[in-house]
Amino acid sequence: MTTRLILDCDTGTDDAVAIMLAATHPDLELVGVTTVNGNVQVEYCTENTLRVLDHVGRSDVPVHEGMDRPIVRTDFPVPRDAALNPNSSIHGRELPLPPATTRKQDVGAVEFLVETYRRTTQEITLVPVGPLSNIAAALAVEPGLVDAVPEVVIMGGGNVKGNATPSAEFNIWADPEAAATVLAAGFRRVTLVPLDATHQALVSQAQCDELRALGTTAGEAAATLIERRITGYDSTQPMATTHSAPVHDALCVAYLLDRDVVDLHHRHVDVETAGRLTVGRTVMDLYFRGHQEPNCHVALGADPDRFFAILRDTFARAV
Amino acid sequence: MTTRLILDCDTGTDDAVAIMLAATHPDLELVGVTTVNGNVQVEYCTENTLRVLDHVGRSDVPVHEGMDRPIVRTDFPVPRDAALNPNSSIHGRELPLPPATTRKQDVGAVEFLVETYRRTTQEITLVPVGPLSNIAAALAVEPGLVDAVPEVVIMGGGNVKGNATPSAEFNIWADPEAAATVLAAGFRRVTLVPLDATHQALVSQAQCDELRALGTTAGEAAATLIERRITGYDSTQPMATTHSAPVHDALCVAYLLDRDVVDLHHRHVDVETAGRLTVGRTVMDLYFRGHQEPNCHVALGADPDRFFAILRDTFARAV
Amino acid sequence: MTTRLILDCDTGTDDAVAIMLAATHPDLELVGVTTVNGNVQVEYCTENTLRVLDHVGRSDVPVHEGMDRPIVRTDFPVPRDAALNPNSSIHGRELPLPPATTRKQDVGAVEFLVETYRRTTQEITLVPVGPLSNIAAALAVEPGLVDAVPEVVIMGGGNVKGNATPSAEFNIWADPEAAATVLAAGFRRVTLVPLDATHQALVSQAQCDELRALGTTAGEAAATLIERRITGYDSTQPMATTHSAPVHDALCVAYLLDRDVVDLHHRHVDVETAGRLTVGRTVMDLYFRGHQEPNCHVALGADPDRFFAILRDTFARAV
Amino acid sequence: MTTRLILDCDTGTDDAVAIMLAATHPDLELVGVTTVNGNVQVEYCTENTLRVLDHVGRSDVPVHEGMDRPIVRTDFPVPRDAALNPNSSIHGRELPLPPATTRKQDVGAVEFLVETYRRTTQEITLVPVGPLSNIAAALAVEPGLVDAVPEVVIMGGGNVKGNATPSAEFNIWADPEAAATVLAAGFRRVTLVPLDATHQALVSQAQCDELRALGTTAGEAAATLIERRITGYDSTQPMATTHSAPVHDALCVAYLLDRDVVDLHHRHVDVETAGRLTVGRTVMDLYFRGHQEPNCHVALGADPDRFFAILRDTFARAV
Repeated sequence: MTTRLILDCDTGTDDAVAIMLAATHPDLELVGVTTVNGNVQVEYCTENTLRVLDHVGRSDVPVHEGMDRPIVRTDFPVPRDAALNPNSSIHGRELPLPPATTRKQDVGAVEFLVETYRRTTQEITLVPVGPLSNIAAALAVEPGLVDAVPEVVIMGGGNVKGNATPSAEFNIWADPEAAATVLAAGFRRVTLVPLDATHQALVSQAQCDELRALGTTAGEAAATLIERRITGYDSTQPMATTHSAPVHDALCVAYLLDRDVVDLHHRHVDVETAGRLTVGRTVMDLYFRGHQEPNCHVALGADPDRFFAILRDTFARAV
Repeated sequence: MTTRLILDCDTGTDDAVAIMLAATHPDLELVGVTTVNGNVQVEYCTENTLRVLDHVGRSDVPVHEGMDRPIVRTDFPVPRDAALNPNSSIHGRELPLPPATTRKQDVGAVEFLVETYRRTTQEITLVPVGPLSNIAAALAVEPGLVDAVPEVVIMGGGNVKGNATPSAEFNIWADPEAAATVLAAGFRRVTLVPLDATHQALVSQAQCDELRALGTTAGEAAATLIERRITGYDSTQPMATTHSAPVHDALCVAYLLDRDVVDLHHRHVDVETAGRLTVGRTVMDLYFRGHQEPNCHVALGADPDRFFAILRDTFARAV
Repeated sequence: MTTRLILDCDTGTDDAVAIMLAATHPDLELVGVTTVNGNVQVEYCTENTLRVLDHVGRSDVPVHEGMDRPIVRTDFPVPRDAALNPNSSIHGRELPLPPATTRKQDVGAVEFLVETYRRTTQEITLVPVGPLSNIAAALAVEPGLVDAVPEVVIMGGGNVKGNATPSAEFNIWADPEAAATVLAAGFRRVTLVPLDATHQALVSQAQCDELRALGTTAGEAAATLIERRITGYDSTQPMATTHSAPVHDALCVAYLLDRDVVDLHHRHVDVETAGRLTVGRTVMDLYFRGHQEPNCHVALGADPDRFFAILRDTFARAV
Repeated sequence: MTTRLILDCDTGTDDAVAIMLAATHPDLELVGVTTVNGNVQVEYCTENTLRVLDHVGRSDVPVHEGMDRPIVRTDFPVPRDAALNPNSSIHGRELPLPPATTRKQDVGAVEFLVETYRRTTQEITLVPVGPLSNIAAALAVEPGLVDAVPEVVIMGGGNVKGNATPSAEFNIWADPEAAATVLAAGFRRVTLVPLDATHQALVSQAQCDELRALGTTAGEAAATLIERRITGYDSTQPMATTHSAPVHDALCVAYLLDRDVVDLHHRHVDVETAGRLTVGRTVMDLYFRGHQEPNCHVALGADPDRFFAILRDTFARAV
């Protein structure tokens, strides 16, 4: 059975693997990719997205460029100078793939989202794996999105740790008001894949070797991109198992293919937007101390073997 | 010379007078009216707007309904139950005019704003006199608005006093993140008309009598609406001169006709979004203690005689 | 070798066990106990402290009553009505021990702390296991405390979970400004024992039976108090191992006897004082994402067997 | 009739004039002066206070040094490097008077306040004209102060303007939590003298000439100090009437001598402690929009002639 999806990305290295998975797996129909400022500036996110799609022979997937800033914050936390971007060691600015030969669509990301969901008679899962600026803006224009989208699968947040600050994960921290809005909007189903899960689904250097050995374009590109991540993590935030790295965004796509790749808990989640130290923290009421209704299926664990099997099997059959 | 404008309203009593002024003055071309949740729920704002336009013979002006909530806040401060609305004594829920016979447009306010400014080759002044939710959402979709709009004339804020809280004026308080976004967006020119100005442009009961005596539909309606305001202010926040009331939103339209109706100062203005007591306060750096570049022309005074003359002369010539 | 200490308590059930441990272990010299509003109102904390000391034959230990409110917050979060206190099921208001026959000292807690540390020529460890109001007030009067106190051992905070809110542990949440002040003050050494450690040092019903079987007054009282905790936890926040409960405050005293009872990490810790959802959260920079100097030895784990052995061995030898 | 008072000062130029007034007026009995970090570091406040008292022949008045930082903030906003202090142009670091020949008391300010009010059987007005750190700390140690002090007369705050930021006056901004605590503590009577009053009681260069012509030590010193203020204000925040300056703190002492020197309004006042832009703002509910009980007599105006007459007449009769 085919699952239709739209990916909303700030395309750095892990977004790229997520796009390749969504673009090449036979059971997934990638309706479009929207881009948003995040890991890198939105112009580079768009270029990177086009590069990935070209590279795996899916230049037919439309790419719509989205917001170049948060929904309301004017002091965007990500330095525009790539050299100063805290994620630059992990993502770089431009992915190590040939320059794109195709172009983005004329229609912007927010309007594409609004129009697509207004018109569709089919279920299209929305998978935002960057800051939630585009989604919050689309909700402002069309509140009916909460009923039109069957499921939102978000990469973001963290309970035990943060990666942008001690309290906050990057995607949520980079546009906390957007994230708070999306979580509170009343979507039919929200699934949140935070660091608590992605840091349990590490991909190792040995597994990169395995991907490269598949002999496919996708396998080789995935290996190269994940190796860049491993180098970045080893130097800035080494994992418990060294020479390995999370591939956050790809885990969200893997979840569409195998619901058991993550371990979900139905809980209330909100986002701190006003603290002195904790802006962008996802406040997960894991132990029911806040007495609020669950609004979110939170992945608190992940199965690294299932995750890697999905990557390997998909890229083995890809171009 | 004709000034084109779009009014963005949360149509209660003073918005109604502003609409009548914009719809009937020969030097103004009212391109459209957009509505937004505020004084009353957006559905009533729309109905009220249609009533006013019908009543003064301008059913041809298109009305586009906009946001029913703030740009990011999910805990909208205005009680949805009209009976609990702090402004209900001043605005009521439905204006005392015959029910509308025309209908709103199918296109929503945000899309109307985006499309109109994308297409126009003419200068259209944007005059938001309610919470700034629609404007902030339109900026999210189309950042190019800051160059396309020649001037934004906002009714909102206050330095010496607030009317929603001791610190904050209602329009800004009702969507502080939207207001902060609009002020910081970089529009070519922003003019802010706060309570400091509108409370100096009071209209008295005697002047209402004068409007009614004009013998026009517009004059009579204005008298009725302003009298309702006087009654509301007398009972909840009496002005220094009793039996008189500000007609905030109409002062913004009057300013388009006579720049000297207000006393402008070029200063830096920002909006508090995170305080314990001061959310929604417009922080005006009147004495240059913050060392920031001016971004706003702030009206700190108004000329009540000039203001009333505009109302009287316009409504005398109207239907 | 004897370790001298002052306990600063909001005496409910776990404070009581901590006091018994400190009052009866031969290697500890309990210089005094100060009380502070927290689990229960300070008057009951004082009465409860006197009861415990009387009960184990240590009426000689001076008890000084301290602050009945936070250092600056006027909206104290703990309902004064014991029936509304979120901790009432775990602590009750008065401990199930005979009424005290002794009286508190005339000198207040803050002055006792200031005077004791000004005069002493000996090292006295400060062990606050309630809200940090007294300690922050003492620092205001006498900043020299940071050099006079050899080590502050604080029960408070939590990274993985909270117990007052989803984000915050009770002691820190109940006076967040005091906690932030104490952590930043520059003490020679600060050791923090958060929920991450105390929830790993659970005491079970079977162990309560063991304590009761010791046949000592202290053993029996400890069993009764911990059983009350188990009942409370089972009904409000059941532990992974049911029929067991943490005895937070006693773990701090146990640490003075056996440094290996907890697993310490030298990290930067600060307290959120201004958030919308996260007030009172201890922000622990466990993974060095904040690039700040460590100021605290944080216990992220505990050894339940070592902990229980200390309780059992101490109470076996007590009265 | 004699009014007893304690002055709590961060002695710069206007504090010095307040001290001279309190020390030399025959109807005032200056029980003691306490110092606190503020305009300058507390060590210089103490030295400056001693200089002033020596200079007017009142070396007998005890001076107690107080807090060198706010009650809870660890990031004190006033740069310790005098050259960076925003007030340095108005206050300098050391007053232009001969070095002190006397010494401060051994007992600190907080303990002096606590002990004095515990022991006294007389009414002693408390007049804090710097940041409220000492007073908040004294309240922490001895909550009974709220009944023991007959009236607190505070120089601080502002509704129409700020002088530390666009929103906040220096004394409140420099320790906002202390100010919020003092205002909410429940004192028998609190009188607040904000910038709204002090900026109406300007002293001009011509009046300085008049003070100098009195031929007394006090008159000459007052002239010199106020001239320094005029120079500072002219260069950094010129008053509507140039070549004049407020002498804030002295207005509080003048009020003890002539209640009509200010125009009081009974209102609710609270302090913003958590905003993004407004920390330290005194939120005055002047128009009853917050529906809270008045807790403060706020001076919204002042009579410059009465004020100057008090200065002139007092210093004419002084040494």
